[in-house]
Amino acid sequence: MISRQILEDISNSSTIRSMFIEGKELANEIGEENVYDFSLGNPATPAPINFTSALSDIIREEDSLSLHGYMDNAGYPEVREAVAQNLNRRFHTDFSKKNIIMTVGAAGAINVILKTLIDPGDEMIVFAPYFTEYRNYIGNWRGQLVVTEPDYQTFQPNFADFESKIAAKSKVVMINNPVNPTGVVYSKSTIRRIATILSQKQKEYDHEIYIISDEPYRELIYDRKNIPFISKYYNNTFMTYSFSKSLSVPGERIGYLAVPNEMADFEWVMSGLTIANRICGFINAPSLLQKAVALCLDETADVEFYDRNRKLIYHELTGMGFSCVKPEGAFYMFIKSPVADEKAFVETAKQFHIILVNGSTFACPGYVRLAYCCSYEMIQKSLSAFRKLAQYYHLSA
Amino acid sequence: MISRQILEDISNSSTIRSMFIEGKELANEIGEENVYDFSLGNPATPAPINFTSALSDIIREEDSLSLHGYMDNAGYPEVREAVAQNLNRRFHTDFSKKNIIMTVGAAGAINVILKTLIDPGDEMIVFAPYFTEYRNYIGNWRGQLVVTEPDYQTFQPNFADFESKIAAKSKVVMINNPVNPTGVVYSKSTIRRIATILSQKQKEYDHEIYIISDEPYRELIYDRKNIPFISKYYNNTFMTYSFSKSLSVPGERIGYLAVPNEMADFEWVMSGLTIANRICGFINAPSLLQKAVALCLDETADVEFYDRNRKLIYHELTGMGFSCVKPEGAFYMFIKSPVADEKAFVETAKQFHIILVNGSTFACPGYVRLAYCCSYEMIQKSLSAFRKLAQYYHLSA
Repeated sequence: MISRQILEDISNSSTIRSMFIEGKELANEIGEENVYDFSLGNPATPAPINFTSALSDIIREEDSLSLHGYMDNAGYPEVREAVAQNLNRRFHTDFSKKNIIMTVGAAGAINVILKTLIDPGDEMIVFAPYFTEYRNYIGNWRGQLVVTEPDYQTFQPNFADFESKIAAKSKVVMINNPVNPTGVVYSKSTIRRIATILSQKQKEYDHEIYIISDEPYRELIYDRKNIPFISKYYNNTFMTYSFSKSLSVPGERIGYLAVPNEMADFEWVMSGLTIANRICGFINAPSLLQKAVALCLDETADVEFYDRNRKLIYHELTGMGFSCVKPEGAFYMFIKSPVADEKAFVETAKQFHIILVNGSTFACPGYVRLAYCCSYEMIQKSLSAFRKLAQYYHLSA
Repeated sequence: MISRQILEDISNSSTIRSMFIEGKELANEIGEENVYDFSLGNPATPAPINFTSALSDIIREEDSLSLHGYMDNAGYPEVREAVAQNLNRRFHTDFSKKNIIMTVGAAGAINVILKTLIDPGDEMIVFAPYFTEYRNYIGNWRGQLVVTEPDYQTFQPNFADFESKIAAKSKVVMINNPVNPTGVVYSKSTIRRIATILSQKQKEYDHEIYIISDEPYRELIYDRKNIPFISKYYNNTFMTYSFSKSLSVPGERIGYLAVPNEMADFEWVMSGLTIANRICGFINAPSLLQKAVALCLDETADVEFYDRNRKLIYHELTGMGFSCVKPEGAFYMFIKSPVADEKAFVETAKQFHIILVNGSTFACPGYVRLAYCCSYEMIQKSLSAFRKLAQYYHLSA
C-alpha cells in the first residue's frame, strides 16, 4: 500500500549506496584494511581547522535564541550577502543577498528549483553519464528525464544529439561541472556552444529553457584549469552549490543556490524558490551551519591531496592497460570495462576486494566509476589487486 | 514560466509568515518594544544549557571525518537507538533503531512519509482548524486535501463529519496533538474513537488508511495532562517529531519519525521512507545536530515559562470579554473574532500594534490565532492595547 512511485524507487535504489554497504560488509568479513572501497564520494580529508573553530566560536559567542531560531526561509541576510560578495570577488559576478538562497545542500537546492519550475510532463535534459539522483529529483515533481549521449571519446557533450533532444516540453537542462562520474570539465567554448543552442531553442519554442548548473565540485579542479561561471554566458541559469566537498562536511547538508539578476521574471522566480524551500519541508538551511560556512567561504578542500591520488591511480591503472579519460576535476575516474557487461567486471573486481560502481547507474553501461577521495595509502595498497584484475582480463599497457 | 503550482503557492503564501514580516516592519517604524507580535511560533526561551554544551563537547572531541561525514540515510544507528530507548522509557513503546529515522525537522518527516505513501489523487484528511502547511505538503505529492469540521464548542473532532469524509481514495489522516492553532489536546478516548472508525473503514475499503501523528508540541502540556501515544491504539501510525520547540532550536531543522513494528508491510515502509529521505533531497538529518539531540533527549522546553504566559493571557483576555477555548498544550490560543470577518479584526488589532494571524489560514474563518511563546513582559505590556481593542468592539466580561 505504499505508493507505486516509491515501489519503483526501491527497486531502482541507489547502486552507489548498495556498493558502499557491500563494501562495509566485506570489510566486516575480511578486515577494513583489506578492502579497497572506491564506491562513495565521501571526502577523506577532514574539515578545515577554521571550520571547526568557527563552529566553536559561534556556539560560545552567539545568543542562543538568534543562533537557533527561525530566520527568513531564504536564510540569514548577512550569510547570503557574504556568499554573494565572495562569488563576486572570485568570479566577477554581480550578486547581492537577493540573488542567494541558503539550502539543505545541493540536493535540496535542486529540488527547490525543480519544484519552482516543473509542471507534470515538463522535460529535463541531462548529459550522460549523469549523477543518478537527477532522475529521482525530476520524478519528485512528475517531470520527464531526457538523456543525451556523450561523445564517447572525450565524454564531452555530443552537441548534435543534445540539439535533437530539445523539444517543446523542454524546461530545464542539467549541467554538472566538473562531471560526476567522469571527472571531465566543460570548457568555456563548450558552455558557449550549449548557450547558443539553448538561446536559439528558446526563440524557436517561445518560452524559457533553464540551465541548472550543479557545482559541488567547483573548487576541485586540477592543472590550473578554470570553470566558467555559466550565468555569465546564459541568463536563465541557476547555480547550485554544496559545501559537502569543499569543506568535507557532506553529513551537514549545507549549500546554496544563486540566480542572476538577468534571469527572466527574476522577482517571481525568487519568490517561488523561497516558498518552495519552505513547502518542500526544508524550511531553511540549518542555522548554525549557515553561520559557520559564512566564516569559511575562502576555505577549500585540500586539492593537492586529491591531485596526488589522481596522478597515482591514473598513471598506474592506464599503465596496467585500463582505459579512461584523464579526469580534470572532482575525484572520480570513469574506466572502460574490459568486457561489455560492466556488472560482471564489478563483480570480478569485488573478488579482488576492489569496490567500484557500475556505469549503468549513470546511464552509461560498459564503464565503471572509481572514486579516489580515499587515502593515498589505500590506493598504493590496492595496486597489486588491480594488477591481478588486469591479468585476469589479459590487459596490457 | 515558473510552474502553475508554484504560482498558486505564491498567491496563497503563508499568512503567518507575512504577518511576521508586517510585525517586523511595524517594529522598525515605531520601535520593537511598542509592537505586540503574537504571530509566529518562534520559541522565546533559549536552548537548554546542556544542548549548548553538548554541541561544544562534540565539536571538540569527535573526529571531523566521522562527525561531518555521510552516514546511513536513516541517520546514525546509535542516535536512532538512543531515540528509540528514550521513547520506550517514557511511553512504554517497543522501539529499536529500526523503527526510527532521523529527519530534517517534522516538516521533512511529513514530506518523506507522504512521498512514500501518496500516489497522485490519493486523499489526506485533516481536522480543521489545521496547520496550513499540511495543504502544501500533500500538494507536493499531487494528493488531495479533505478537511473535516470541528465541534465548534470544544474544537475537538466532529466524529460524524470525520466518518463521512473517509472514502475509497483516503490514504492518510493527519493528526496534530496538541493542536496548532487551538492548543486543544486530544484525549485517549478521542484517539480510541478515531482508531475505531479508521479500523472499520480499513475493512470496508480493504486497504490501509494511515495516521500521521505530528507531535512537535508533545512535551508542551499543561495541568499534568498526558498525550496518548497513538501507535499503541492504531498500528498504521507514523509519529513525526521535531526538536524545534522542546529544545528551542527551530532554525536547526532536526527531528525524527517513528514507525511501530505492527505497521502493515513494515519492511517495505521503512525501505521506502529511507529512500524517500534521500530522494526528497534531505539525504540525511544534519549530522552534528543528530549527535547533539541524542545527548539531550530528556531535556524539554521550559513548560512553566509557557504556562505562566498561558494563565496570564487566557485570564486577562477572557476577563475582557474575548472568547476562546482554554488551551491545554502548545503555545497557541484560538480567539473568536468579535466580527464575522476576522481579517478586519486582525487589521483593527494591528492599529493597536497587536499582531495576530487570521483563522482562514487554518481553514477556520471567524477566529484568530495568538502565539504566546513570547516574553511575559510583552504580554503584560500588551494588555492595555487589548483593553482598547475590547472597548473598540464593545466587549464586556
